[in-house]
Amino acid sequence: MARTTGSHSDITGPKVREAALRLFAQNGFAAVSMRAIASEVGVQAGALYNYTPDKQTLLFNLLCTHMEQLLAAFTDDTSLAPVDRLRRFVDFHIRFHADRPDEVFISYMELRNLSPENFSAVEALRRQYEDRLQAILQSGADAGEFDIADTKIATLAVIAMLTGVNTWFRVGGRLSLDQVIAQYWDMVRKSVMSG
Amino acid sequence: MARTTGSHSDITGPKVREAALRLFAQNGFAAVSMRAIASEVGVQAGALYNYTPDKQTLLFNLLCTHMEQLLAAFTDDTSLAPVDRLRRFVDFHIRFHADRPDEVFISYMELRNLSPENFSAVEALRRQYEDRLQAILQSGADAGEFDIADTKIATLAVIAMLTGVNTWFRVGGRLSLDQVIAQYWDMVRKSVMSG
Repeated sequence: MARTTGSHSDITGPKVREAALRLFAQNGFAAVSMRAIASEVGVQAGALYNYTPDKQTLLFNLLCTHMEQLLAAFTDDTSLAPVDRLRRFVDFHIRFHADRPDEVFISYMELRNLSPENFSAVEALRRQYEDRLQAILQSGADAGEFDIADTKIATLAVIAMLTGVNTWFRVGGRLSLDQVIAQYWDMVRKSVMSG
Repeated sequence: MARTTGSHSDITGPKVREAALRLFAQNGFAAVSMRAIASEVGVQAGALYNYTPDKQTLLFNLLCTHMEQLLAAFTDDTSLAPVDRLRRFVDFHIRFHADRPDEVFISYMELRNLSPENFSAVEALRRQYEDRLQAILQSGADAGEFDIADTKIATLAVIAMLTGVNTWFRVGGRLSLDQVIAQYWDMVRKSVMSG
């Protein structure tokens, strides 16, 4: 095994994250040892500690990075009509998540394995993302275009529906991602529209 | 510890299932040993094997029992109009799942820890449940009351939305379960209705 690849943490870092992500998604956080991650990267277990103080920090970094990339990737355009802002959100959310099955999977599965303080930090990032959808729904409700009893509940309902695509969608399956997005958009649009 | 409680598997069985459910939900399947389950029940580790051959079988039984109870609890009434059958399904699904947070949690979290053959068995039960909703949606589509591009996709979308309630709903929170159900029903109804 190439011990020398462990000598520069700027090279090893991305490899460690990739290996940890793959192994956590396959086997679960609790079942994966630092030794197993080191072996997957091709370094001695001790070399991992140049990059991360412990497995908890590694998990936290993976979940934070995922949420930060999500927040960086979606920019709302408030000059558009609420229905068009919502359409952009639905399209973005499904595509972004379909592209990152392992990240999405561990973001749901391993939340319970975060320390309380790390959990709070990831939850705060999630809330930021939810707030962006809620702002869109609220703008449509304020304009009388949407009919929504409670925009917070509607936000959680729409996000759960859209993220659910990841549990069954497979490239090359019966429907293309574009077809899936078209049907989800139709359902989401109707679910919030006024009478 | 009361070793005598382990002497009759008909008494210990429910206690073992309850303890395993609680511990799997709290710590995850991979992190829970048979010894820990025995300790929670108050029997020697060896006594557990009178009840279950291994941890895998215990998990499988928990997940199967949950799905079998779900299937037994919901009876569709095909004499009703499609919209009323759908309303009954939405009300039932949210209430049944809200009552069983641990069962629902491990049913999602621990699917990956089932052996391939046990996974297939649980998946088949899930599909039976999904088929019942799909039959309702199809009847509404056939009658021209619902406008749904693909009833299978709509089934998965509605179930994901409804089950999502479990990730955030807490008794005593801002909204009652009845209020939550009312809003989800409004969204589901609109999402499938003809324009």
